[in-house]
Amino acid sequence: MAQGFTGKILRVNLTDGTTSVEELDPVLYRRYLGGGALATYFLLKEMPPGVDPLGPDNVLVFMCSILTGTPIPGFSRYTVAAKSPLTEGFAESEAGGFWGPELKWAGFDGIIIKGKSPKPVYLWIKDGECEIRDASHIWGKTTGEAEQIIRNELGDKRIRIAQTGPGGENLVRYACILNNVKHANGRTGLGAVMGSKNLRAVAVRGTQKLPLHDEEGVRNVTRWFAQNWRDNPRQVIMHNLGTSNGVLNMNAGGILPTKNFRTGTFEHADKISGQAMVDTILIEREGCYACPVRCKRVVDVKGEYDVDPYYGGPEYETIGSLGCLCCIGDLPAIAKGSELCNKYGIDTISTGVAIAFAMECYEEGLLTKEDTGGIDLRFGNADAMLAMIEQIAFRKGLGDILAEGVARAAEKIGKGAEKFAMHVKKQELPMHEPRGKKTLILAYAVSPTGADHMENPHDGDFASRSPAMERVAPLGFIEPVEAFDLSHRKVRQFVYLQKIWSLYNSLGVCTFVAAPVYTLTFEKLIEALEAATGWKTSLWELMKVAERADTMARCFNVREGFTRDDDTLPDRIFGPLEGGALEGVGVDRDVFQEMLSCYYGMVGWDPETGVPTKARLAELELDWIELPGVEVKA
Amino acid sequence: MAQGFTGKILRVNLTDGTTSVEELDPVLYRRYLGGGALATYFLLKEMPPGVDPLGPDNVLVFMCSILTGTPIPGFSRYTVAAKSPLTEGFAESEAGGFWGPELKWAGFDGIIIKGKSPKPVYLWIKDGECEIRDASHIWGKTTGEAEQIIRNELGDKRIRIAQTGPGGENLVRYACILNNVKHANGRTGLGAVMGSKNLRAVAVRGTQKLPLHDEEGVRNVTRWFAQNWRDNPRQVIMHNLGTSNGVLNMNAGGILPTKNFRTGTFEHADKISGQAMVDTILIEREGCYACPVRCKRVVDVKGEYDVDPYYGGPEYETIGSLGCLCCIGDLPAIAKGSELCNKYGIDTISTGVAIAFAMECYEEGLLTKEDTGGIDLRFGNADAMLAMIEQIAFRKGLGDILAEGVARAAEKIGKGAEKFAMHVKKQELPMHEPRGKKTLILAYAVSPTGADHMENPHDGDFASRSPAMERVAPLGFIEPVEAFDLSHRKVRQFVYLQKIWSLYNSLGVCTFVAAPVYTLTFEKLIEALEAATGWKTSLWELMKVAERADTMARCFNVREGFTRDDDTLPDRIFGPLEGGALEGVGVDRDVFQEMLSCYYGMVGWDPETGVPTKARLAELELDWIELPGVEVKA
Repeated sequence: MAQGFTGKILRVNLTDGTTSVEELDPVLYRRYLGGGALATYFLLKEMPPGVDPLGPDNVLVFMCSILTGTPIPGFSRYTVAAKSPLTEGFAESEAGGFWGPELKWAGFDGIIIKGKSPKPVYLWIKDGECEIRDASHIWGKTTGEAEQIIRNELGDKRIRIAQTGPGGENLVRYACILNNVKHANGRTGLGAVMGSKNLRAVAVRGTQKLPLHDEEGVRNVTRWFAQNWRDNPRQVIMHNLGTSNGVLNMNAGGILPTKNFRTGTFEHADKISGQAMVDTILIEREGCYACPVRCKRVVDVKGEYDVDPYYGGPEYETIGSLGCLCCIGDLPAIAKGSELCNKYGIDTISTGVAIAFAMECYEEGLLTKEDTGGIDLRFGNADAMLAMIEQIAFRKGLGDILAEGVARAAEKIGKGAEKFAMHVKKQELPMHEPRGKKTLILAYAVSPTGADHMENPHDGDFASRSPAMERVAPLGFIEPVEAFDLSHRKVRQFVYLQKIWSLYNSLGVCTFVAAPVYTLTFEKLIEALEAATGWKTSLWELMKVAERADTMARCFNVREGFTRDDDTLPDRIFGPLEGGALEGVGVDRDVFQEMLSCYYGMVGWDPETGVPTKARLAELELDWIELPGVEVKA
Repeated sequence: MAQGFTGKILRVNLTDGTTSVEELDPVLYRRYLGGGALATYFLLKEMPPGVDPLGPDNVLVFMCSILTGTPIPGFSRYTVAAKSPLTEGFAESEAGGFWGPELKWAGFDGIIIKGKSPKPVYLWIKDGECEIRDASHIWGKTTGEAEQIIRNELGDKRIRIAQTGPGGENLVRYACILNNVKHANGRTGLGAVMGSKNLRAVAVRGTQKLPLHDEEGVRNVTRWFAQNWRDNPRQVIMHNLGTSNGVLNMNAGGILPTKNFRTGTFEHADKISGQAMVDTILIEREGCYACPVRCKRVVDVKGEYDVDPYYGGPEYETIGSLGCLCCIGDLPAIAKGSELCNKYGIDTISTGVAIAFAMECYEEGLLTKEDTGGIDLRFGNADAMLAMIEQIAFRKGLGDILAEGVARAAEKIGKGAEKFAMHVKKQELPMHEPRGKKTLILAYAVSPTGADHMENPHDGDFASRSPAMERVAPLGFIEPVEAFDLSHRKVRQFVYLQKIWSLYNSLGVCTFVAAPVYTLTFEKLIEALEAATGWKTSLWELMKVAERADTMARCFNVREGFTRDDDTLPDRIFGPLEGGALEGVGVDRDVFQEMLSCYYGMVGWDPETGVPTKARLAELELDWIELPGVEVKA
């Protein structure tokens, strides 16, 4: 079988400690590709609605894409999916790094994990075999410590480990999974799902050759990327300045999330920019497997804060959430916060938003020093921020409440705290401002995982005949859409881009190397897939896989009781921005509802309820999905 | 402007005898491509609903595609569109041949004709100029005579002429337009629209070079076709046996329309097959511009019937309609009928169905010799068939009634004649049997032009892993659909294939050279378009153009008052076939209605009413279409 995929799924039952290997029908790969779409397929097929996300009935799926493990840059990514302890709906998160390719070389496309181990364990997967091993001795250890212990005891330094940390063990609802202690499946609380199953880590080592249809063809795309990525100025900026390259532009545009989204302008933006990091604490640029772009940062800090380079360095989302959102302009402190989150296995976005929320509650008098254990939890207090990370990861004091996420924390705090809780579907907002990047109005509201940072709308690029627009012309984007146009044109722009993002999650490709903005054009993506598999495919077929993924995720949430009312934005976003270039700009509630109906209609869901129609389910060959008790219109 | 299109449209007002040239916004070409989609755009923009199709307010559009006029085989086609005198709804018909390329070389992508000339005229277009010339001396002449007269008086034998004939002059509701007297825009009565405008012909001569983005790229596709078409066995059969290559297989399968669709088996099938023609009357194979396949036939007959080779030879549809449908197994007689229809400019399909209808009425006693002028109008009487062609073209005797089409004729005859009238939306059924080729159930019912022969479903090819299925895999057809499966799978198969057919009508490419069955893959079509235009496009973008075309045509009919009730089939098709391999097989009415709702939903129209939704109109950038008095759902 020379097709890019191994054809094998590892199944693990942690309750009874058994494992098995399942061979998948090749048709499934073509219909669901891998990654997000294929993971969602298994969730819907094998988990009934209504299970406790932190109970043994949750199903935890790790899924690579067909192209994960090929040497083509940007395809290192894999999906983890389950029911989310944070949203109690659909959970999906991707990570790059090295673990995904290693799993493919070990002979598996994915792992489906069920049940709950009676004691802490980790999985040891090597070349087609899987062992469930005791993890009592690493329970409570930092991610770095655990990684070393596992590598040492298995006697192989090249083992790749995806794990959660103390945050996951302590069921922080936004605990994450990390591989190489710095590539995170960050969002939706998948680390807590691992923790709830007493599963600390999945260690993998593979030495098998990945079967490819056309090795020379795969090499050609690989070579093409190496030869061309430096011709893309945005790709080069990504290499030079990393993911926080846009901080100064965003600040100038009034859309740098600051002070818990009260404003979009931060007085110390220049201190936390990508350039500032290069000029101060950066010691190395790192990449994921096979990727020459090396957008990841490694920082070394000595002095007031000691930061261990082993944990990499802060991404933009971390700089935003632990930095400007908390009004902290101290890059070493942010880097320390990033290190702590990675050590403990908690999502930096939700952590930062939870702390900013607490800071606002504190400044507004809803929380006092009594609640914080004496910490002066003001905006701008870096030490307070770091202390709160510790409290959250170990569920100490106020941290125990914040570990529930801002939505639940606001409920517990009461006194109207909900108005400071910046979340959609109980997941905290990432560091992009919907009042300025208008496509995010829909992206945040309808994302099946709640507000998600992986849907970067590039509104500016679509507002003029930019190189990015040229590169999405194959989608039919033939005329610019003005950045603040909220008509059906903006909705369509989002609808098509959303498919692209879903496609990337299923292809396992990084948005930072691919169209619309970066090196890999749609043509090259298709060339890569065709070389690996031998299929003749098209952007039409791939967009339909993306529609399938989006519609399945929607069905997952519909089954769990989500309705149109859950597709909304925090109150604050409907209100005006304070200060900055977009002072006074908010989101009109009526316009929002019109956009929402238009979106539902365009994707083939009922324009009133957002429930996928029978016809759309049938078109996508998803007629097997059952939505009991829900009215599914023709 | 090096882009495959001239960028210019010729506008002609026949009422006041003026002409002008309009330059089109290049965005229009990318959004509507040309051919069917671009023609429909102009119909909707420039013609209000409710006009008399035979009055001066009808708008007659001739439209080439971007690729018409390039040397790539199969792209010779152009569209003619208007409001149909036959259906009183949307009219569109394509023809190959040589006229379309010539128009491009004359500097125009299309012609929009309005008004009505006070006297017979023809247009003379040469290299960017247009003259409206007197046609009094050719009025009443056969197409062959008219062609000679025009070429002689303009002194150029290479002039290409699209014209109607006496049938169009006499407003036969299914009069056609022919170029080179044998390439027909056959259906929906566009010849009658010409006749109603006193426009007999459009003569064209062009010597301008068509601007191309990448001439070498266009040459490459051309060369590739020349080198590869003989490797496709079906393409070779098309060359060898022509379009009637399938007669014997269809007869064996019980789906060869016979005796006015009462049965699907014809005792003399072997006498009218493609092989029979090769063995008896064929003297030459002809092609359209630049096409080496040469599927067109030229026949020479002497004896009981003299057939002039100047008019080519009968296509399958003609052999079916004038042959087996009328129980006539006499190939020379059928060839004579074909010649007469081409001479007089009437559509062979509607003509044959009208005659078969009359034959059944005669045999059943609804018509007598008194009605027929003494003709013994029995099934199988070849001389009667030929006599009726004369009567129809010149509206003599019974022919005057049959010239109205079977739906109106049945009304006039009364006595229950409607049950013998094989039409959808008043257009006569082509020679394919929906009770056997199941996709036709929808194809006939929902075609905006009424039953149409250009939507050939290839059900058999999709029922197994055939080469055709491999070639449509880029559409997402990854599993066979059993030929008699009437579930959503069959509906989806039709929905996607319908887009392909619409795309081909807009690309100007012949279904007999392209996927699913023939030489040009989707990849090559895209390569051709990209080379000509310099665009980077994709199958996604092209499928969206097709959706746009289909939705515009639907809107045209909705504006004219068509409803779900018009999307149906003749009663006979719901009933059982008599005899043959499919004896007793009919179409279940409930299943049909389910398929119809599913189809509406899949294409983004209201599943109950079939009216395009607001969201789908918005997605396709068709929000400019007005549907007054119609409920358009979100």
